[in-house]
Amino acid sequence: MTVFATPDLTAASYSAALFGLIATSVLLLMGTAWTRGQWKLVVTLCACSTIVGVLAAFEARAAWSSGAVPIVYHYVGWIISMPIQVLALFFFTRAVGQVSIGLFWRLLIVSVLMVFIRYLGEASYMDATLAFLIGLIFWLYILGELFFGRMDTAIRDSLQKPVITAYFWLRLIVTVGWAIYPLGNFITSFGGYDDGGALSVAYNLADFLNRMAFGAAMLSAAVLAAPSERPAERADPGQI
Amino acid sequence: MTVFATPDLTAASYSAALFGLIATSVLLLMGTAWTRGQWKLVVTLCACSTIVGVLAAFEARAAWSSGAVPIVYHYVGWIISMPIQVLALFFFTRAVGQVSIGLFWRLLIVSVLMVFIRYLGEASYMDATLAFLIGLIFWLYILGELFFGRMDTAIRDSLQKPVITAYFWLRLIVTVGWAIYPLGNFITSFGGYDDGGALSVAYNLADFLNRMAFGAAMLSAAVLAAPSERPAERADPGQI
Amino acid sequence: MTVFATPDLTAASYSAALFGLIATSVLLLMGTAWTRGQWKLVVTLCACSTIVGVLAAFEARAAWSSGAVPIVYHYVGWIISMPIQVLALFFFTRAVGQVSIGLFWRLLIVSVLMVFIRYLGEASYMDATLAFLIGLIFWLYILGELFFGRMDTAIRDSLQKPVITAYFWLRLIVTVGWAIYPLGNFITSFGGYDDGGALSVAYNLADFLNRMAFGAAMLSAAVLAAPSERPAERADPGQI
Amino acid sequence: MTVFATPDLTAASYSAALFGLIATSVLLLMGTAWTRGQWKLVVTLCACSTIVGVLAAFEARAAWSSGAVPIVYHYVGWIISMPIQVLALFFFTRAVGQVSIGLFWRLLIVSVLMVFIRYLGEASYMDATLAFLIGLIFWLYILGELFFGRMDTAIRDSLQKPVITAYFWLRLIVTVGWAIYPLGNFITSFGGYDDGGALSVAYNLADFLNRMAFGAAMLSAAVLAAPSERPAERADPGQI
Amino acid sequence: MTVFATPDLTAASYSAALFGLIATSVLLLMGTAWTRGQWKLVVTLCACSTIVGVLAAFEARAAWSSGAVPIVYHYVGWIISMPIQVLALFFFTRAVGQVSIGLFWRLLIVSVLMVFIRYLGEASYMDATLAFLIGLIFWLYILGELFFGRMDTAIRDSLQKPVITAYFWLRLIVTVGWAIYPLGNFITSFGGYDDGGALSVAYNLADFLNRMAFGAAMLSAAVLAAPSERPAERADPGQI
Repeated sequence: MTVFATPDLTAASYSAALFGLIATSVLLLMGTAWTRGQWKLVVTLCACSTIVGVLAAFEARAAWSSGAVPIVYHYVGWIISMPIQVLALFFFTRAVGQVSIGLFWRLLIVSVLMVFIRYLGEASYMDATLAFLIGLIFWLYILGELFFGRMDTAIRDSLQKPVITAYFWLRLIVTVGWAIYPLGNFITSFGGYDDGGALSVAYNLADFLNRMAFGAAMLSAAVLAAPSERPAERADPGQI
Repeated sequence: MTVFATPDLTAASYSAALFGLIATSVLLLMGTAWTRGQWKLVVTLCACSTIVGVLAAFEARAAWSSGAVPIVYHYVGWIISMPIQVLALFFFTRAVGQVSIGLFWRLLIVSVLMVFIRYLGEASYMDATLAFLIGLIFWLYILGELFFGRMDTAIRDSLQKPVITAYFWLRLIVTVGWAIYPLGNFITSFGGYDDGGALSVAYNLADFLNRMAFGAAMLSAAVLAAPSERPAERADPGQI
Repeated sequence: MTVFATPDLTAASYSAALFGLIATSVLLLMGTAWTRGQWKLVVTLCACSTIVGVLAAFEARAAWSSGAVPIVYHYVGWIISMPIQVLALFFFTRAVGQVSIGLFWRLLIVSVLMVFIRYLGEASYMDATLAFLIGLIFWLYILGELFFGRMDTAIRDSLQKPVITAYFWLRLIVTVGWAIYPLGNFITSFGGYDDGGALSVAYNLADFLNRMAFGAAMLSAAVLAAPSERPAERADPGQI
Repeated sequence: MTVFATPDLTAASYSAALFGLIATSVLLLMGTAWTRGQWKLVVTLCACSTIVGVLAAFEARAAWSSGAVPIVYHYVGWIISMPIQVLALFFFTRAVGQVSIGLFWRLLIVSVLMVFIRYLGEASYMDATLAFLIGLIFWLYILGELFFGRMDTAIRDSLQKPVITAYFWLRLIVTVGWAIYPLGNFITSFGGYDDGGALSVAYNLADFLNRMAFGAAMLSAAVLAAPSERPAERADPGQI
Repeated sequence: MTVFATPDLTAASYSAALFGLIATSVLLLMGTAWTRGQWKLVVTLCACSTIVGVLAAFEARAAWSSGAVPIVYHYVGWIISMPIQVLALFFFTRAVGQVSIGLFWRLLIVSVLMVFIRYLGEASYMDATLAFLIGLIFWLYILGELFFGRMDTAIRDSLQKPVITAYFWLRLIVTVGWAIYPLGNFITSFGGYDDGGALSVAYNLADFLNRMAFGAAMLSAAVLAAPSERPAERADPGQI
């Protein structure tokens, strides 16, 4: 085992993200028991995204022992956890209103492609500029759905204050927090990525905060939300 | 620990499949709490198949560190997870209709033999052409049961829309998604398998999608299905 | 990590047993939630025996990396899992009828001694022929209890068809499936054990099938059995 | 990985204790669901003590690979698990009668000191004879509380047969089973401890039996005990 | 694996803290099932802090194999577990009274900064004296909130004896138990930290006791507290 030195900020940020994501995963998994109906699914999806974060942080930190974290370690985590988070937003909306199943497929495909295209650019399987731009467009599409699509209307129509507040914060995370990913993509694609620690620390803390705050906001909305009013899908409310 | 390089697509596909299957396993295990009666068994079996997928992906990726994944790593995962998936389809049907216990044994034996015979062919314990053909026949037998047997009738007779839709997708996975296995078997048996990455990537993503989409379709049907109408086996519906 | 080659049937059988026992353990642990009263204890004991099987298969497979599995790896698993399985049969009977607590102690002691004496013989701490014969007698004693003792009567008196059917299969496993153990003991004691793969494959598949089929039969009986009629031990049936 | 040879009785005893304690932990953790009110706490504490036993056995066995198990590996397990077991006895008594909170603190402190003082003697931080005598006195103090203190009266006053029987066995374990610890302490302090296998085997099997039989007796009492009659602490019996 | 020698007190203290924190985590996670409403959140947060303690102790002990534990190993654990414990105190208060959400953010930010600034000082990223003083002020701020802020009033107004007693002990832990951290910070900053064992033993036992006693006090209050009287947040008391 490599022993990390005290001033090794990259190792420290990986360890802190790892421990924090483990604690968040435990909290979210336990928290599914405090919520009702469709909210259980929403909180479980957030837990899945933090668990993937735990695995990604663990493997990247192990790679760091040899002095470098190839960018693929970050992308492998994102390609699973980002679509999960986008789908958590979809089911979050569905828990209080009506959104079409078509939106589910659009969000799923766009979020997977967003990460995959960026990876192709970083791994030089594709022109870096083109990959950066396509990845950016996919991200903007998701933001468009969140700000101007059916989801925004459905949330506002629910008239549930904790849900509307949580949606405000979740959208902020996807807008501001997720901006680090195209930014980092831009930096490494054009400025060169050296596998060193600086960008890793930024990615890492962003990952931790994005996933943890995302999950905490979801859990708080799920616990405080009033029971769903859609009886058709809740024939037996005590069961799901 | 071997650090995988960024353009190593095989390692990336193993890692992504590993993380995705772990997330799916967590979702399915938590999801058993949202379903009722026999659906719990169906979802648990899907979770078992994704857990086996996690183990197989983990071990194959570890083997890949040394530059090659012997085909046995794939077959070991399949010989456990494929029969589990076929039995999940059996109990899926039984949750809404009547199918004989004889079908259970036929499906179990045929699905185990299908994988085992293919392995014997690949490992040169048996003539490759013969093994390929027998494996193919076993697969076609399973498809026959799914398309023209009692299961199809029982599902259609249930008149439950979410169950019928899910069955359509599940059958599609077993038909189209599982076609990669005899295809890969054909390629490696006659074109030679070099333990390299290309086929591994294909197997890997197929495994991930087949298991994940399979589990997700089952879970969605289980959550949306109406309670079973067969009182004899549900004397105390709140218990099982 | 040692990478196992494709034609290494011993490694393949260990991996398959390992994955299969993990899947069975997950199924049985989840399955305790679908059963009632004393059946929960029975299914949990079966889960304990498959978990011990997982551990034993994992360690033996790791030993196999160095080319040989000393027989002690098998015995360590058996000395825990066999008494657990025999006790599961005892509580299986008690769930539907009356058997004395003295039988519990007799079965426990005989099943522990059966494995321990065989180990003493194999490890040359004791005369091999004597150990083989004593181990055989202990096994026959257990069979005697199952076929001609109180347990058989109690099961038949319960008049519950799923329980009687399951008991038939369970007894078959202990009679036919467990015959591999004295047989293997005989072979290695008199023919010499070379730590090689052939007997390991046989033990391994036997272990997997004996534990998995045993657990599955128990679970199916537990789920299908009618609620116990003995009110004295079920003052609050919803609790245990 | 070191492969243990078949006649290596020490390794075999560690492995058997490890597997047995894992099985016991699973049983006790599942078993908390079958009990009510304060009994859940009692069974959980027993599970904690077997889990600590698992960890201690695992680490000691790993140390044994290098041919010796320094005595500290045993003491680290005891200093956590023995106070837990003594407190389990305290809450066992409290589940059926009244005992003062002062007894809780006395038992906790005495049981921690008992193990710590013995360790100081073994590690030569303290005079071996003195440490042996002080450790002995602390053990006798615990026995005094169990035989002549409030606990004995409270148990007898409960008039619950399964609880009284279990208390008889639990006290026997603390009297006869725990006698191995001062005995071993005496032997190694005065006869010299050579880190070899003989005493390890004795400690090991004692640990396994003391923890396993202790937990099993507690679980059986917890399942069979009548519901507590103290309404003040059971305002909502379905919750705790 | 490095085998620790018997007189290696540092290794022994790490192992004991590790085992003890694992046992405490199991107890707290199981204990969430014995509590109601918001208390579940409080106990889960305590479990998260002990789980982080387990991880930190495990990694620090592994580092100790090479003869030194860089101070960063301690700080990584604290930066996650201390804010969790402070927030547990916040939700502890909220379970029986009203405290503003602004207090939540103030406590969260101050407790994260307290640990982070101390780390910057220890790692020489910042002047050691300044970091010590700022860290001290942040700790005193937390103490101020606990002794003279809204929390103290809210707890006293709840009139629930077990809650008031637990709050007394919890505040004592944050006052006396946590004093080891600025003290250790002072010693290593000015006297020099040599990565050796002495301070590790102190930190370690403090960590164990602070987290374990903290969690035990919380659990005992959660189990004994009367149900919350605030109906608005408990529309469906059986659910959360």
